[in-house]
Amino acid sequence: MIKVGIIGGAGYTAGELCRLLLNHPQVEIRFINSSSNAGNKITDVHAGLYGETDLVFTDELPFDEVDVIFFCFGHGKSAEFLSEHKIPERVKIIDLAQDFRLAAPGNDYVYGLPELNRSQICSAAHVANPGCFATCIQLGLLPLAAAGLLKNDVSVNAITGSTGAGVKPAATTHFSWRMGNMSIYKAFNHQHVPEIKQSLMQLQPDFVNEIDFIPYRGDFARGIFCTSVVRVDECTDTEYFVNLYKEYYKDCAFTHYADKAIDMKQVVNTNKALVHVDKFGSKLLVTSTIDNLLKGASGQAVQNMNLMFGLEETLGLKLKPSAF
Amino acid sequence: MIKVGIIGGAGYTAGELCRLLLNHPQVEIRFINSSSNAGNKITDVHAGLYGETDLVFTDELPFDEVDVIFFCFGHGKSAEFLSEHKIPERVKIIDLAQDFRLAAPGNDYVYGLPELNRSQICSAAHVANPGCFATCIQLGLLPLAAAGLLKNDVSVNAITGSTGAGVKPAATTHFSWRMGNMSIYKAFNHQHVPEIKQSLMQLQPDFVNEIDFIPYRGDFARGIFCTSVVRVDECTDTEYFVNLYKEYYKDCAFTHYADKAIDMKQVVNTNKALVHVDKFGSKLLVTSTIDNLLKGASGQAVQNMNLMFGLEETLGLKLKPSAF
Amino acid sequence: MIKVGIIGGAGYTAGELCRLLLNHPQVEIRFINSSSNAGNKITDVHAGLYGETDLVFTDELPFDEVDVIFFCFGHGKSAEFLSEHKIPERVKIIDLAQDFRLAAPGNDYVYGLPELNRSQICSAAHVANPGCFATCIQLGLLPLAAAGLLKNDVSVNAITGSTGAGVKPAATTHFSWRMGNMSIYKAFNHQHVPEIKQSLMQLQPDFVNEIDFIPYRGDFARGIFCTSVVRVDECTDTEYFVNLYKEYYKDCAFTHYADKAIDMKQVVNTNKALVHVDKFGSKLLVTSTIDNLLKGASGQAVQNMNLMFGLEETLGLKLKPSAF
Amino acid sequence: MIKVGIIGGAGYTAGELCRLLLNHPQVEIRFINSSSNAGNKITDVHAGLYGETDLVFTDELPFDEVDVIFFCFGHGKSAEFLSEHKIPERVKIIDLAQDFRLAAPGNDYVYGLPELNRSQICSAAHVANPGCFATCIQLGLLPLAAAGLLKNDVSVNAITGSTGAGVKPAATTHFSWRMGNMSIYKAFNHQHVPEIKQSLMQLQPDFVNEIDFIPYRGDFARGIFCTSVVRVDECTDTEYFVNLYKEYYKDCAFTHYADKAIDMKQVVNTNKALVHVDKFGSKLLVTSTIDNLLKGASGQAVQNMNLMFGLEETLGLKLKPSAF
Repeated sequence: MIKVGIIGGAGYTAGELCRLLLNHPQVEIRFINSSSNAGNKITDVHAGLYGETDLVFTDELPFDEVDVIFFCFGHGKSAEFLSEHKIPERVKIIDLAQDFRLAAPGNDYVYGLPELNRSQICSAAHVANPGCFATCIQLGLLPLAAAGLLKNDVSVNAITGSTGAGVKPAATTHFSWRMGNMSIYKAFNHQHVPEIKQSLMQLQPDFVNEIDFIPYRGDFARGIFCTSVVRVDECTDTEYFVNLYKEYYKDCAFTHYADKAIDMKQVVNTNKALVHVDKFGSKLLVTSTIDNLLKGASGQAVQNMNLMFGLEETLGLKLKPSAF
Repeated sequence: MIKVGIIGGAGYTAGELCRLLLNHPQVEIRFINSSSNAGNKITDVHAGLYGETDLVFTDELPFDEVDVIFFCFGHGKSAEFLSEHKIPERVKIIDLAQDFRLAAPGNDYVYGLPELNRSQICSAAHVANPGCFATCIQLGLLPLAAAGLLKNDVSVNAITGSTGAGVKPAATTHFSWRMGNMSIYKAFNHQHVPEIKQSLMQLQPDFVNEIDFIPYRGDFARGIFCTSVVRVDECTDTEYFVNLYKEYYKDCAFTHYADKAIDMKQVVNTNKALVHVDKFGSKLLVTSTIDNLLKGASGQAVQNMNLMFGLEETLGLKLKPSAF
Repeated sequence: MIKVGIIGGAGYTAGELCRLLLNHPQVEIRFINSSSNAGNKITDVHAGLYGETDLVFTDELPFDEVDVIFFCFGHGKSAEFLSEHKIPERVKIIDLAQDFRLAAPGNDYVYGLPELNRSQICSAAHVANPGCFATCIQLGLLPLAAAGLLKNDVSVNAITGSTGAGVKPAATTHFSWRMGNMSIYKAFNHQHVPEIKQSLMQLQPDFVNEIDFIPYRGDFARGIFCTSVVRVDECTDTEYFVNLYKEYYKDCAFTHYADKAIDMKQVVNTNKALVHVDKFGSKLLVTSTIDNLLKGASGQAVQNMNLMFGLEETLGLKLKPSAF
Repeated sequence: MIKVGIIGGAGYTAGELCRLLLNHPQVEIRFINSSSNAGNKITDVHAGLYGETDLVFTDELPFDEVDVIFFCFGHGKSAEFLSEHKIPERVKIIDLAQDFRLAAPGNDYVYGLPELNRSQICSAAHVANPGCFATCIQLGLLPLAAAGLLKNDVSVNAITGSTGAGVKPAATTHFSWRMGNMSIYKAFNHQHVPEIKQSLMQLQPDFVNEIDFIPYRGDFARGIFCTSVVRVDECTDTEYFVNLYKEYYKDCAFTHYADKAIDMKQVVNTNKALVHVDKFGSKLLVTSTIDNLLKGASGQAVQNMNLMFGLEETLGLKLKPSAF
């Protein structure tokens, strides 16, 4: 059994981690740290766990009892935490925040996108779990980068659920405002673009173009649906691209090329990603979709944990789709 | 032109008042007081007004410029405000909070439910606008009380939209939690029950039973849908009750008896109420529905203003239903 | 491995069965019969299964290859099917329709509510799976019936998701109509009342009262939320009832008494039921909630299958809650 | 009073026309033709009209009683209808379908986008009302075309509500499927692109590029939200474009440039359009939003009627925004 500690345990990604790990056959949760909730039952904070656990939040950090720690902090706090606490070397770390996603001198975190870095993850001690939008967008573009086909700016439009905005209530997550509404934010400036570019350049070192990403606030709680438009050679037929994607993802546990048009609820409440391509003249339209809390966060974190500990990649992640 | 002042102008009911009064042919809004928003455009706070007004919030209270004031405070603050400010006697007041809804020594506010107190409202200087749930529930029960037919406890279940909970974000109005969710609150203890009982006793002085009211948080922004079950004489046929309701509401501008089963979106974004009855043995099932921000708050306030100033009751209130 | 056949495979309950059984560690799906879809992939019809199965619908009925058959017909067609087909005696049957839920001469189907009939289900060859509303309402009332405390008519209000109305598009499941809407149907006349009464009388033979059930169409896809009001002795304290419920459900795998107020999304996408009680004078308010497609249909069917085959009751049913 | 006839009266656009025209101070509805509903009350078909009208559908076509006819047919049927019926020359026609939107020999219909063709509409006998997506996209691009600044392909992503798909229930408007879901359709192939190009070429005759339009099915009933990305000169500052838009729309009754980021519910249930621009390097991002049934269909049709009959443009169209 892998002994797990979760730090920053009161947010959405920590809750989803608990919901996953409580049913994981090879995991034992040893502690869930949340100073603001210390002493409270996790069932009081994380919906859906009633009757499944008696776990209580703690403000302690018994690092010596665990094999792996998940950081579920807000962005920017992981580095701060590490500077203030000494974590034993044998304890692996999976950071769900963005602090270590970008390569930098002294940063030994592997970027935890299995569709890109599977073998490095398998031997990693520290993994930086990708962002939710970043995951969905990359899964739409990786096969093209691997074939060196990204030669122009890419137009990306992606819409996310309200859980992407976190548990803290705000004007844009007020039900009265968001229900039946549509808006954009951080257009051309979203913080996930650098990690996307880094991955594309890893596969296609001459990639120098822009990812023109427009994020939308969706009128739903879970999921990301993304369209990417890429200029390609008009003479190459669609079949070529379909095969490129099928080949790239053929051994992936959770990412599948779909022969038909996709919709978001096909993956909601699963760790799966679906990708589909169509071609119109010289424009390749790629649609990709994930659950932002699963493949876009906690599910991918568990997938990375499975790989880091030599377990079967899908363990604890064969989730019934909600479908409706 | 009636000159209007709005106090407590940043909340949902004040916003809806603005949206109504800007199109009211006999009204001029003179000031919208909100100390926290003083200097800001009302279009920055109240959605939907872009291009319709240049009004700016003020922290001043030029009572001498207006004919009527609407209080859009949170509950409990109207009385406090009145104790701290001297309002000229000639200025009429319509209070949307609950402070003056219950009769009490020294309380000269008329309870502003036109279906109950139309003539008193017409000559009132001060009106206490009814609560949203209270309006919907009473419209389902008034004809029975008028006929003296409320002889047992009444089972009331009513579901309201998220705008009923106000503009301040909270856990239960977080989109992630509320979307696709269902829950109850304040069962058997809702603060609107006393004003409902007061009205029923006004019509049926021997009414001594309970209103067993279960309020639900609905997965929508606007509207209230209510079912009330009343024990009646098993031998009286349905037709009798249908006629009772038709007769009671036959001269009402906004409340209609519907021959067919009703649904909530028939009235959303209008000042209308629909009522329908069915009978099953000795149980009379009454369904009633309103828009909580209109007939349940600001729309009814404007209706009361029209009556108080001798205008046509429907002026400024012939609203296109949203329907979808 | 238990070999399974599904008949009537194109509807919502069949889809949910597939989503469950594909991940069930002791089940092999041998055939999914749907004459209208014969030859099509089940991934083309049932959302969420892409990448998990290559199963194809068949119009054949190889009864000799299976150990158990699930009937997912519309109501009324199971009996018709049985009259036209000879199913080997050794093949167990779980009928999700209502055809055999009521005891009748010659009806050897056990009513498949484990919280009521667990031991009979364990030895049953044929099980009639309860209705969705019926499950949720009964779970709110069984402990009272077991204690002989149902002495008056019970007021039940329950709201269901659009999946309760089936896959066939209709006016009341059109998104434009249903979104943000609220309405009732079949009030006091719902077809699930007889099976509820039958169960209550099984536990409390002198139960002769009415279940005054008002069903609501909810503005969500999955879930049922139910309130039941029961008259009880005013002098008995709440604690007594809390203990009654805790005791009744203490050994149940999926039904839990919740100490706090409950909301529907706590159980959505799980096979769990949550029940909570409050007391106001002589009125006991019971809230109960389930996922209509899981504990209210396909999940309970798998739970029954587990019991009928001597498997652990929760096998294949430890589902991650969607929570959001 | 303008006497109006509506043909094809059972669909969404006809319903919205009725909801508008019943409150229009200068209009009298003379007939609403729907052969399938002849004899039924329009309140039985069109939600929200209870208590406002006794109108009944007719299967007759008393052209001599009306001044103007609205065609609310499905696309392709207007031309067919005209070939089968003789409409008096003095009767004006406003066609909400797409049959006459594209210029062609013998087509005397003016394209009814007031922001483009106001003066021609004022003197037109026949108007082809623009498509909903077409309206929203054009309002985002017209000022650029007027300035001759469309020099490259334009990336357009726009999301529409379920009412855009019509009243007939279908798999993609089933509530269970659409709620919380996201998908695209007719990408790069939508039928509104030709009318958009026609308008852009009217203002910028050298426009030869593509409108790469990806339409999304939204999880809401009303509204369209659109983003358009246009390559512009990197050295021109944002202020230039802001002024371009403000100048272009300065006299428009319903289309406004918004200084701040916009969201869709600001215009839902109104005839307004909001437009906003941001610039990122050489990319101009235009957001535009309308209500698909109002400015995108029936509201614009009434606006055109007002212009054709010399009425004030906003008559009957000062609608309270739903806001929530």
